[in-house]
Amino acid sequence: MDEHIVSSYDDELKFIVRRISEMGGQAERMVERSVSALINSDWGLAQSVVADDVLLDAAQRELDERAIMTIAKRQPMAQDLREIVGAIRISNDLERIGDLGKNIAKRVIAVHEHQQPIKLVRGIEHLSELAIEQLKEVLDAYVERDHLRAQAVRDADEEIDAMYTSIFRELLTYMMEDPRNISACTHLLFSAKNIERIGDHATNIAETIYYIKTGQQMASDRPKNDTTASMTVAVPGSGAAPAGAGE
Amino acid sequence: MDEHIVSSYDDELKFIVRRISEMGGQAERMVERSVSALINSDWGLAQSVVADDVLLDAAQRELDERAIMTIAKRQPMAQDLREIVGAIRISNDLERIGDLGKNIAKRVIAVHEHQQPIKLVRGIEHLSELAIEQLKEVLDAYVERDHLRAQAVRDADEEIDAMYTSIFRELLTYMMEDPRNISACTHLLFSAKNIERIGDHATNIAETIYYIKTGQQMASDRPKNDTTASMTVAVPGSGAAPAGAGE
Repeated sequence: MDEHIVSSYDDELKFIVRRISEMGGQAERMVERSVSALINSDWGLAQSVVADDVLLDAAQRELDERAIMTIAKRQPMAQDLREIVGAIRISNDLERIGDLGKNIAKRVIAVHEHQQPIKLVRGIEHLSELAIEQLKEVLDAYVERDHLRAQAVRDADEEIDAMYTSIFRELLTYMMEDPRNISACTHLLFSAKNIERIGDHATNIAETIYYIKTGQQMASDRPKNDTTASMTVAVPGSGAAPAGAGE
Repeated sequence: MDEHIVSSYDDELKFIVRRISEMGGQAERMVERSVSALINSDWGLAQSVVADDVLLDAAQRELDERAIMTIAKRQPMAQDLREIVGAIRISNDLERIGDLGKNIAKRVIAVHEHQQPIKLVRGIEHLSELAIEQLKEVLDAYVERDHLRAQAVRDADEEIDAMYTSIFRELLTYMMEDPRNISACTHLLFSAKNIERIGDHATNIAETIYYIKTGQQMASDRPKNDTTASMTVAVPGSGAAPAGAGE
């Protein structure tokens, strides 16, 4: 293969890798701002997140096309091919993270029609801090092609799942205490679920980094700690036996 | 290009297209069975949906790799390239539909700890029938490369959104009437949201078919009818002014 083609392939790869980092930064800011909009009832900020999602979608579509053209033109093999395929997968996860940020932003109005105790919103803020930290960590691991750091990100997702489970339980209890909380808490439940999903996408990205670097899939699925799918909460003061969390 | 290579590319394309149809059938059955498990409190059926998701994930990963290798080896252009890129996108949507079916299946235990009025579960059943119908329609449009039929699927997604909005409102009202309904209704809310998302993925597939056939993106986004992100419901009998639906 002559020097010129090699260099040009490298340029294309560098372009793709740089775009992934840019998209990662955009997705991260969307999540930060959507949660900030939720906490501060900032509808203007929420709207700007919704608008940014269009840009992130377009960036993903463009990266996809670029990556596919690179594969068709350069026919890369082994790690080179994994780099491009990995970039397609990561940009897909980043686009979905942006979607989840947008979904949170869209709930800002409903959550604040009734004033909620600051404690509940703080729980969501703390959950989002964990998720954003995971996202930053996995984007750094991508830049450094550090598959061990990526593995640590995957393992830390348990913490997000555990905190989501606790917020889910708290929100349900709060709804039962006073039916006036039900509307807002429902939207907070969906927001919390969206943040928990952001953690899952950080995990996907970690697994893709591992695949790019090693050519292997990461060892078997870690146990999931989000047990809310089977969770019920007893009505306070009701005679019914507490249903427990199904954990 | 010699005849042999052309014929072999066609074989690879046929293989990929056939696998997409198989994956579509799997995803469709997963959704049908998850909703059936929810309606009949059939935990065994729910577990089989969770198990099937592993197979669908593996099928998607395999199709992805196969499609990428075809691009690298054959360097297809124009509609041939769009066929392969489209297959990658559609298999991604089908995998996510399978995930959503799995999520519904995982809620089967929690929903049935307390008996729910059949009316609520019927609403979800009817919503799922619409979503499955959309999925069948779009898979047929894919086999026939019928971009007009695909467009009709995209336009019909409004019905799913409208019905989801009505179920969301109904579930919230029901939670307010009796706090003992809150746990189960929360899980039904998440299940309904999952079904609404299945409709969105059918829409994505419709847009991909249009792109494969025409090389163009479908005309600008249809208006979304899922207005639940800003919806609140007034507490029955409370003195507070009804918050309305924010629509």
